[in-house]
Amino acid sequence: QPKFDKLFGKVDELKGEFIDILGKAVEIPAVSGDESLRPMVVKKAHFLVEQLQRLGFCDIQLKHLGTQPPPVEDPNLQLPPVVLSRYGSDPKKKTLLVYGHYDVQPAKLSDGWETEPFKLHVDEKKQLMRARGATDDTGPLLAWLNVVQAHREAEVELPVNLITCFEGMEESGSLGLEELIAEEADKYFKDVDAVCISDNYWLGTKKPVLTYGLRGVNYYKTTVEGPAADLHSGIFGGTVAEPLIDLMQVLSSLVDSKGKILIDGVAEMVAPLTEKEEKLYDNIDFTLDDLNEATGSETSLYQKPKDILMHRWRYPSLSIHGVEGAFSGAGAKTVIPAKVNGKFSIRTVPDMDSKKLDKLVIDHCDKIFKKLGSPNKCTTELIHDGAYWISDPHNPSFTAAAKATKLVYGVDPDFTREGGSIPITVSFQQLLDTSVILLPVGRGDDGAHSTNEKLDISNYMNGMKTMAAYLHYYAESD
Amino acid sequence: QPKFDKLFGKVDELKGEFIDILGKAVEIPAVSGDESLRPMVVKKAHFLVEQLQRLGFCDIQLKHLGTQPPPVEDPNLQLPPVVLSRYGSDPKKKTLLVYGHYDVQPAKLSDGWETEPFKLHVDEKKQLMRARGATDDTGPLLAWLNVVQAHREAEVELPVNLITCFEGMEESGSLGLEELIAEEADKYFKDVDAVCISDNYWLGTKKPVLTYGLRGVNYYKTTVEGPAADLHSGIFGGTVAEPLIDLMQVLSSLVDSKGKILIDGVAEMVAPLTEKEEKLYDNIDFTLDDLNEATGSETSLYQKPKDILMHRWRYPSLSIHGVEGAFSGAGAKTVIPAKVNGKFSIRTVPDMDSKKLDKLVIDHCDKIFKKLGSPNKCTTELIHDGAYWISDPHNPSFTAAAKATKLVYGVDPDFTREGGSIPITVSFQQLLDTSVILLPVGRGDDGAHSTNEKLDISNYMNGMKTMAAYLHYYAESD
Ligand SMILES: [Zn+2]
Ligand SMILES: [Zn+2]
Ligand SMILES: [Zn+2]
Ligand SMILES: [Zn+2]
Repeated sequence: QPKFDKLFGKVDELKGEFIDILGKAVEIPAVSGDESLRPMVVKKAHFLVEQLQRLGFCDIQLKHLGTQPPPVEDPNLQLPPVVLSRYGSDPKKKTLLVYGHYDVQPAKLSDGWETEPFKLHVDEKKQLMRARGATDDTGPLLAWLNVVQAHREAEVELPVNLITCFEGMEESGSLGLEELIAEEADKYFKDVDAVCISDNYWLGTKKPVLTYGLRGVNYYKTTVEGPAADLHSGIFGGTVAEPLIDLMQVLSSLVDSKGKILIDGVAEMVAPLTEKEEKLYDNIDFTLDDLNEATGSETSLYQKPKDILMHRWRYPSLSIHGVEGAFSGAGAKTVIPAKVNGKFSIRTVPDMDSKKLDKLVIDHCDKIFKKLGSPNKCTTELIHDGAYWISDPHNPSFTAAAKATKLVYGVDPDFTREGGSIPITVSFQQLLDTSVILLPVGRGDDGAHSTNEKLDISNYMNGMKTMAAYLHYYAESD
Repeated sequence: QPKFDKLFGKVDELKGEFIDILGKAVEIPAVSGDESLRPMVVKKAHFLVEQLQRLGFCDIQLKHLGTQPPPVEDPNLQLPPVVLSRYGSDPKKKTLLVYGHYDVQPAKLSDGWETEPFKLHVDEKKQLMRARGATDDTGPLLAWLNVVQAHREAEVELPVNLITCFEGMEESGSLGLEELIAEEADKYFKDVDAVCISDNYWLGTKKPVLTYGLRGVNYYKTTVEGPAADLHSGIFGGTVAEPLIDLMQVLSSLVDSKGKILIDGVAEMVAPLTEKEEKLYDNIDFTLDDLNEATGSETSLYQKPKDILMHRWRYPSLSIHGVEGAFSGAGAKTVIPAKVNGKFSIRTVPDMDSKKLDKLVIDHCDKIFKKLGSPNKCTTELIHDGAYWISDPHNPSFTAAAKATKLVYGVDPDFTREGGSIPITVSFQQLLDTSVILLPVGRGDDGAHSTNEKLDISNYMNGMKTMAAYLHYYAESD
């Protein structure tokens, strides 16, 4: 189609400018987790406003979310604003909301960066751009703006109404965003037909992916308490029921070394694997070696890539994280801890009912503890949960994105899920009652949250082209 | 006997002076664990030298033990000296070594002390003396010197040759003392017939005790390692073998909630209970309420006092202390720890062989781990051990002390053991090849190592009388 030739040609033509704008953006150290850098996060919001104005976005609003809740040093610390804006408001067009975040993880040269983390380093040889935020998420966020610029300069009409929702608190728990989405669902976000989030990564380094699912997580704490204070094992060992010994019995009953969850009723809640779903796992660009490389070990529970991916994405898992209240230092301390909290979590998947899971877990722990006949007290509680997310990978939005990917990369994308949760995905889907797609720009080895974070120039350029084509295919869909 | 009338009368007469001398001693904050207070520890050694000179002790030596090994702030920090001295060297008399320590635990008024910890507060109403070191161990140490003073002023000949061995590092691991004992075994300590240590406490608050046994301890670390670095449970949960899950299986196999050690072969090493030994447990001043009060709970594994005491003193116990390397903070962290160390220890008793125990423990852990079929690596090692100690409670030293106790208190003492270890006891017994007796002065509620440490005036006074009578009865024994 000639419009794509024009658009893609313009993207190529503007390459230098697009790299420059990323360079300007990453120079602002917008670390949301560092209170002292909060003014820089706000500065980056204003930088985005300037760009939106330059590109003709309208109805630009900085949504203030109020004071950051404790723990904070400064009790009056303001949350960074959410940047809302529109491009077009044609009632005959579909409306797409694009989400991105302009805050970044902390970074220091001394952490092991090859170049200054807050200065874009363009490695001409490796054809990549290195900086904190390059791939998470400043690069993908700017890619959306660049797509609009390419349309303007190529004089191709934007086929959808675009709404931006850019937050500055993603790396610190997206505080306040869910409330804003709820608040604006019938207002600013009233006409949204679909949401597109570019804030995850390809599974590997070679093949583009579209992501249609995320696991949720239910995090539990099992507390065993007995003596009023820690005791000396010389004096009391052998005469009192030790809370940590009881806790070990409870924790060791949850899961076996093969990863099998031993809590009755959990496996039964998992959605059965359909043939159609299983097909999505064929030919995914992933091997056992990829897992071993990522863990730096040969500790995989499965040998076949399909089994590994299914257990990462579509089956629940139970991890034990640690014990609070026991001796955790180096050396030899002869303490009998008086009160210990075992921490474990279950990654949840369709069709697990979170509340029902809580009951199964708590009942299981109670039952195991009761069998011990211990005079101590044991309680188990949920301390945090986040819902899983699943989308239909065959809906119009995914179909458009798959077509765009094929057009740009010449291959069908892998349809992936992720093992971790991105809570805001569920919020958008539920609160706006709309479909969400995760359309990643960067690769699996980009090192988001790590030292030497990078974005390959080809991913930046092809990412914009894919986004552009996606807008058109999605606009054309039924 | 008229000599006891004279001696006890003199002790009573000197009461005010004995309280004053304790007051002077505790004013020196000889905290061995606080490097900045090391000069005070040394000052207290010199204070003791003055007292020994005043009382006519001879051959007074300050034994320097060299530089304190790391970790220390000051790499040239000198260990406090051991104070050796003699009173008498009549070859026709028996020679008794008395051990005490002049260093103390840290203490600050702000910790919750009712009065300044380094100022002796005499509570006339409760008839007790409160200060850091009152009962541990400055009071009992000075009691020995007071006994000599009473003999001198009552003009009763000391019936034994006395050797003092006063260290200033007991609260910080008795660094250097074992080497000194070995070094002096054939020199300063050549003629020692028995050792008497007054550095523990009555079991309760009413009945005097003599202590004839201590448990030892073998401290183990089980390490499970797999991935090269900590992993995120969202991404890797369900696909890798988690070291902490394996460790829970190993740790939970060691002991049950009833305190039963589940390692094959351990129970078989324990010396059988003889009728004679069992009789020692009759009528001991101890109740289930005492244990419950001490633990601030009702978490006892046994209801009968005899069972409680036997499991504290003469049976081994296994305590799990904690996990190093896992998440141990508050809140919810979704980490899969890459390498975890489980810490546990076994309190040892006659006739357990320490080396054989190590093998049983390590073999057990290896066997349990192997059954898991995990790709992780698991190793178990001993990281610290201390031998148990047992004496014959019917030997001449104990018989003399029991007679002395009966004379002073009017009751037969309870024969007790302790669940914890006092390593120096074993060192004296083994290196000097002699019998050791633990003859406590203070009560079980004295609060050694705690706030408001105290010594009842009656314990101080009766303690001296018991020590004095002990010297005479021991001198007369065969
Ligand atoms: Zn991100
Ligand atoms: Zn991130
Ligand atoms: Zn002591
Ligand atoms: Zn002490």
